[in-house]
Amino acid sequence: METLRSIAECRQWRLDNNQATVVLVPTMGALHAGHLALIRKAQEEGDAVMVSIFVNPIQFDDPSDFDDYPLTLDEDLITCAQAGVAAVFVPQREEIYPNGYCTFTEVVGPLTDKLCGGARPGHFRGVATVVLKLLNIIQPQVAVFGEKDLQQVLIIQRMVADLHLPVRLSVGPTVREADGLPLSSRNARLSQESRAKAAALPRGLDKANAAFRDGQSLSMSLVELVYEELLVHPGVEVDYADVVRLADFSEASTAQAGDLLAVAAFVDGVRLIDHILLGGPGLSPSKEG
Amino acid sequence: METLRSIAECRQWRLDNNQATVVLVPTMGALHAGHLALIRKAQEEGDAVMVSIFVNPIQFDDPSDFDDYPLTLDEDLITCAQAGVAAVFVPQREEIYPNGYCTFTEVVGPLTDKLCGGARPGHFRGVATVVLKLLNIIQPQVAVFGEKDLQQVLIIQRMVADLHLPVRLSVGPTVREADGLPLSSRNARLSQESRAKAAALPRGLDKANAAFRDGQSLSMSLVELVYEELLVHPGVEVDYADVVRLADFSEASTAQAGDLLAVAAFVDGVRLIDHILLGGPGLSPSKEG
Repeated sequence: METLRSIAECRQWRLDNNQATVVLVPTMGALHAGHLALIRKAQEEGDAVMVSIFVNPIQFDDPSDFDDYPLTLDEDLITCAQAGVAAVFVPQREEIYPNGYCTFTEVVGPLTDKLCGGARPGHFRGVATVVLKLLNIIQPQVAVFGEKDLQQVLIIQRMVADLHLPVRLSVGPTVREADGLPLSSRNARLSQESRAKAAALPRGLDKANAAFRDGQSLSMSLVELVYEELLVHPGVEVDYADVVRLADFSEASTAQAGDLLAVAAFVDGVRLIDHILLGGPGLSPSKEG
Repeated sequence: METLRSIAECRQWRLDNNQATVVLVPTMGALHAGHLALIRKAQEEGDAVMVSIFVNPIQFDDPSDFDDYPLTLDEDLITCAQAGVAAVFVPQREEIYPNGYCTFTEVVGPLTDKLCGGARPGHFRGVATVVLKLLNIIQPQVAVFGEKDLQQVLIIQRMVADLHLPVRLSVGPTVREADGLPLSSRNARLSQESRAKAAALPRGLDKANAAFRDGQSLSMSLVELVYEELLVHPGVEVDYADVVRLADFSEASTAQAGDLLAVAAFVDGVRLIDHILLGGPGLSPSKEG
């Protein structure tokens, strides 16, 4: 496995692999079984998987969240090598954001304004901008993103379509723990006690989904079920819980099958997100988890 | 010469010319000798020149300006064929801007806020976005832009650097008429009388530059010389005239050699722009004009 630490090295590797179908898995490191599922998906999509590891400063609306983001580069490189990754790209911040940089790409409208976009101003502008940079540098034929960050996936799909980017997107599965909690690098920041509380996110979503399947279609009532499940735990604050139409993120005061119920909550200060598609299967633990 | 009318045709042509150095000259059509100078420059840069012709709706802040923009596609195709262009890309608006599109790219800060950016809100966001789309579709090794639209050149250079786009930019010369007026597609909209007035733009810039070379370094005084030259003509309105540092478009109340003096004016309703680098040569007519 090659570890590429500059854009020039990355471009040279790409030239050397000109005949390969290169598949990019962009990450912020702190790799876990969820990332491994994306890497396996990538290996099905092509023959040279590149993992990028870059904690993107401009997508953090909260500086302390950026400062606290887990960094485990040595372990990540071992994980990638063992998983059969062809190359890891670990760029320097100064190279991704050159001196005087001032170019941003943004998907505007409900897709960006709602849910995490509303709660974290500038977050998705930062995500879209860094993903565009990575795609331009690496020029993969395929890029794999995790279903766990569904709003991010939809925004990047829109960006790729709108900008006519020469890349195909592939969506990898969410991996969940036995109690339903989706794997996330941020889980590493949870104490044992906080970790127990965190399972209220998928549990609340499952309860709301069960109520929807039993005939409750008032979004406000579904959202209330999520709140109830979360707020019994001291130290848990709900950032948002909302039902939107999946296609365009428009308001859905009366829920329909296929609508997105999404939640973000701070669990003892650690921000976690989860979602469910109403009428679909529950958030049972993944076999891969 | 091939005329490509869809993105799919364009991508197929690019594949067919995979071994060539493809050079893109993006235009809005209504081709004139200024564009021909860019095409010649492009032919020096590579071996397959593609001209794109697309009047980009989202870069027009004024709908009537868009409606009145000259369209001469039949003549343009003949011009390109005679100039030895390999392919012309004439995309449909609906394909460049797919249904529900909402992705924009923007260079923020003084480079975009000053001069034409201040006078035409959203203009350079539209320019950056469409150029990015065209680069993604065509994937040229080189793209040629005209020095006449210097602010646009600087913004695109910044975007290409910031987004790490895999393209090299080349800047083609401004072609001027005998009286110094730079060639522009908008000149076609000038009556004979308006055409005579229009020469006040380069004349005013030349006078200010001469004053600068004679020791006048107060930007306000230099700008005043431009105003004086323009405002003697009834029907001429100055949109802006300003001196900025070329490197970062910061304010330059005391002018230095290499500063940019730029002007935009409506001549009987037609918006024209021109500029000069202070301390540099005057705007004598080009030999190619």
